[in-house]
Amino acid sequence: MINGSASDRIDVADRGLNYGDGLFETIAVRGGAPRFWQRHLQRLAQGCERLGLPAPDSQYLASEAAALCVGVERAVLKIIITRGVGGRGYRPPTAAQATRIVALHPWPDHPSSNADTGISARLCETRLGHQPLLAGIKHLNRLEQVMARAEWNDVDVAEGVMLNNAGEPVCGTMSNLFVVRGGVLMTPDVSDCGIAGITRQRIIEIAGEWGMRCDQTRLTLDQLRQADESFVCNSIIGIWPLRRIDAWTFPVGPITRRLVGAVAEQAG
Amino acid sequence: MINGSASDRIDVADRGLNYGDGLFETIAVRGGAPRFWQRHLQRLAQGCERLGLPAPDSQYLASEAAALCVGVERAVLKIIITRGVGGRGYRPPTAAQATRIVALHPWPDHPSSNADTGISARLCETRLGHQPLLAGIKHLNRLEQVMARAEWNDVDVAEGVMLNNAGEPVCGTMSNLFVVRGGVLMTPDVSDCGIAGITRQRIIEIAGEWGMRCDQTRLTLDQLRQADESFVCNSIIGIWPLRRIDAWTFPVGPITRRLVGAVAEQAG
Repeated sequence: MINGSASDRIDVADRGLNYGDGLFETIAVRGGAPRFWQRHLQRLAQGCERLGLPAPDSQYLASEAAALCVGVERAVLKIIITRGVGGRGYRPPTAAQATRIVALHPWPDHPSSNADTGISARLCETRLGHQPLLAGIKHLNRLEQVMARAEWNDVDVAEGVMLNNAGEPVCGTMSNLFVVRGGVLMTPDVSDCGIAGITRQRIIEIAGEWGMRCDQTRLTLDQLRQADESFVCNSIIGIWPLRRIDAWTFPVGPITRRLVGAVAEQAG
Repeated sequence: MINGSASDRIDVADRGLNYGDGLFETIAVRGGAPRFWQRHLQRLAQGCERLGLPAPDSQYLASEAAALCVGVERAVLKIIITRGVGGRGYRPPTAAQATRIVALHPWPDHPSSNADTGISARLCETRLGHQPLLAGIKHLNRLEQVMARAEWNDVDVAEGVMLNNAGEPVCGTMSNLFVVRGGVLMTPDVSDCGIAGITRQRIIEIAGEWGMRCDQTRLTLDQLRQADESFVCNSIIGIWPLRRIDAWTFPVGPITRRLVGAVAEQAG
């Protein structure tokens, strides 16, 4: 659905295609409704503010999403907002008319055991560039993630951990990263690169409700290697414990198990 | 024209839109033909190799470009190559079917005096992230340029100079940068960020033919400030002397003038 009309084609002059000038959200649909809608909408609005885009009309978006989700048990809802059609040239048009795309995708066929027994991951060679101006938001410039995900074909490796220019772990190619050390949760700060994930934020809040310390901080590779527990998360996979990163192994520990359950069960 | 058919619409599932997973070329059309076609095609092929994309069929591209340029005195030809339609997820499809877009745009209405009397520019606050994996090629992840170009509305400022994370000048938002110091040309190295422009390369070669030294190197802000002459260039504007960058002023010097003429007159 594009700007409220049934369509799957956009103008080749759209700035989303030409410059990646826009944002997206990837939302889990369960039982006919998008989960954590308000949170996704809020992040989208924050992204729009950062890019100087008019925020999309939330009522239009909600009704379009609802229409697509009717009777859908499990799917992925993807929203893309771009700065719309513009002439050639980087300069944003003064009166940009945003393009609003809402589309339903099949639920990915990840092994259901991933959340129980954990996954194998690798350290990616592709580094995340330092760009505080674009960090945190879910914009359409994703070549770093594409290059990182293209590094491996081994079906037994479910995710790759990406480092920043300083060699510090920041996130997975499609997920946020957490470690547990001495009962304390740590997740890399995303103010210089990476995305501020919705599930990441939920975990920070759940930890708060449990009275468990959760630091958003710079994480060193040694701290990751020496973690008691480690996991990745996003809105579609929930939490996947990391059982292995290359040669490093981790147990699927009690705090991770408790969070897997809490994240899956929480309504929203 | 999309994949050889007359169309101006692409699939919303195209990875060019979703991730900026592709490349582009912006080519001057003069007297019915694209200028420096082989150079643009070669850079496109290099970009494809860097991104792991199959290079587009050069015969198809050439015939599509030729068809669009028939009888066109002056225009801009834009080519976009993307990794094509893929499912959701960063992983490139194993058998990617590239999308090939060839479109004609109007010649921009920059003042014709820019090349003679020079332009005013500004130093942009938006920095270029350090990303050697993507530097040099003309990929579709251009939010840094969009953000930089959005910094000013003053019509008397024709370009912005962008710095890297270390505060060193690298390029303009839409151009490459050169300085002249003591009869020597210098242009910032583009192996960590920036684009390896076609006109930049032509200038390096012209300098070589003239027996003039031209260093591709790290340039400091002081070296720029203290330049005898300074200019920006791209395939559409040719060369624009920099008469001013914020409060710094420069003369339109003899080497720049000679290069303006050589770049404009060279066949290709």
